[in-house]
Amino acid sequence: MVLRDTKGLIKATALTLFNERGVSHISGNTIAEHCGISKGNMHYHFRTKQDIILALFADIVAEVSGSWREDTDQPTVKHMAEMFERQLEMIWRYRFFYREMSSLVRDSDELHEMVIAHRDVRIEEVRQFFEALVESGVLVKPRSRESLRYLVVLSWIFSDNWLNFIELQGEEEDAEVINTGYDMIIELFYPYLTESARTEIYDSYQAIKADFLSPDKD
Amino acid sequence: MVLRDTKGLIKATALTLFNERGVSHISGNTIAEHCGISKGNMHYHFRTKQDIILALFADIVAEVSGSWREDTDQPTVKHMAEMFERQLEMIWRYRFFYREMSSLVRDSDELHEMVIAHRDVRIEEVRQFFEALVESGVLVKPRSRESLRYLVVLSWIFSDNWLNFIELQGEEEDAEVINTGYDMIIELFYPYLTESARTEIYDSYQAIKADFLSPDKD
Repeated sequence: MVLRDTKGLIKATALTLFNERGVSHISGNTIAEHCGISKGNMHYHFRTKQDIILALFADIVAEVSGSWREDTDQPTVKHMAEMFERQLEMIWRYRFFYREMSSLVRDSDELHEMVIAHRDVRIEEVRQFFEALVESGVLVKPRSRESLRYLVVLSWIFSDNWLNFIELQGEEEDAEVINTGYDMIIELFYPYLTESARTEIYDSYQAIKADFLSPDKD
Repeated sequence: MVLRDTKGLIKATALTLFNERGVSHISGNTIAEHCGISKGNMHYHFRTKQDIILALFADIVAEVSGSWREDTDQPTVKHMAEMFERQLEMIWRYRFFYREMSSLVRDSDELHEMVIAHRDVRIEEVRQFFEALVESGVLVKPRSRESLRYLVVLSWIFSDNWLNFIELQGEEEDAEVINTGYDMIIELFYPYLTESARTEIYDSYQAIKADFLSPDKD
């Protein structure tokens, strides 16, 4: 008998189904069926669909709080570019969440609190990272400390809602859309990039685009 | 007997109720009750709650397509600042719509098409307005025509979602929040403002803030 990570299987299956059809159209039973497990086994791991959503959001937080933090310790153009790319790519992977965030947090106080706590911590981390980018000569100093926070919040709101904006338009969401999102975040920060950072970002940029458009990407 | 604009009354009442409690918690009957009219009278004017939402969105479009267009014919700092202010203030008035847009368009193909058509037209109008602002020396020329469109889309996505961002945080939405939103849009365009425009915007800015914080505002 092969040991299976049933919890992981349930989360991955739910994620795919939520992304494809929307949370309200997917029941716990549907997820169990797609996993090829019994309702009882499903219930053993997750009591409700809501619990799966909480677990998926916890994965988002773990991902951001884990390796990402190492990046923000290194204030270089490369790490800045990779942070933007990684953020958009993650939003793409968990797109059901960013698409339905308002209603999901309305339905769960626990999720709502997790989302707020994560956002507060992360926005402050990114702001500090941007201060470090100013120190290291990647960004020119904005008008004020407040300005820097505004730019971070602008990019945050943009990232969270970019796929929704595209989806409304009826355009297909694909890797090209993430690339355009990346271009737009760069546009936002472009006036603050120093000359050398502009050259460097143009190079890392080509690499990121090539990476996103490679056929093995989702 | 006083002639009443029953249609207008229904729309205004529905708007208040939708803003306060959310569309899903308000039935057509609740709206009729709050208007002090019979269900039959209500039904005479609007067959369904959905029809009221369509009428409210048509009002948004009419407002934007009406007097706003005159503004975009005049590429000055004053008109640019007023456009931002007006946009945020309108989103505040119709906040239920911007809060629930994803689910509202999912429930109505007609609304969905109206929203897309309006957005396409308006983003192109604003982009042209910004080109005119470059011509008239208010804005410095961005890197490319594409850049200008990106900036317009960034400000659009920000405006549409700023109140949602604040609401998630549990902060009270009030005039101060609109002012901060205005500050953030200015921050976005600040690097592109010419020196004289910066001075001028600072002045119009004080006027706008004073206006928003005046006690007779909603």
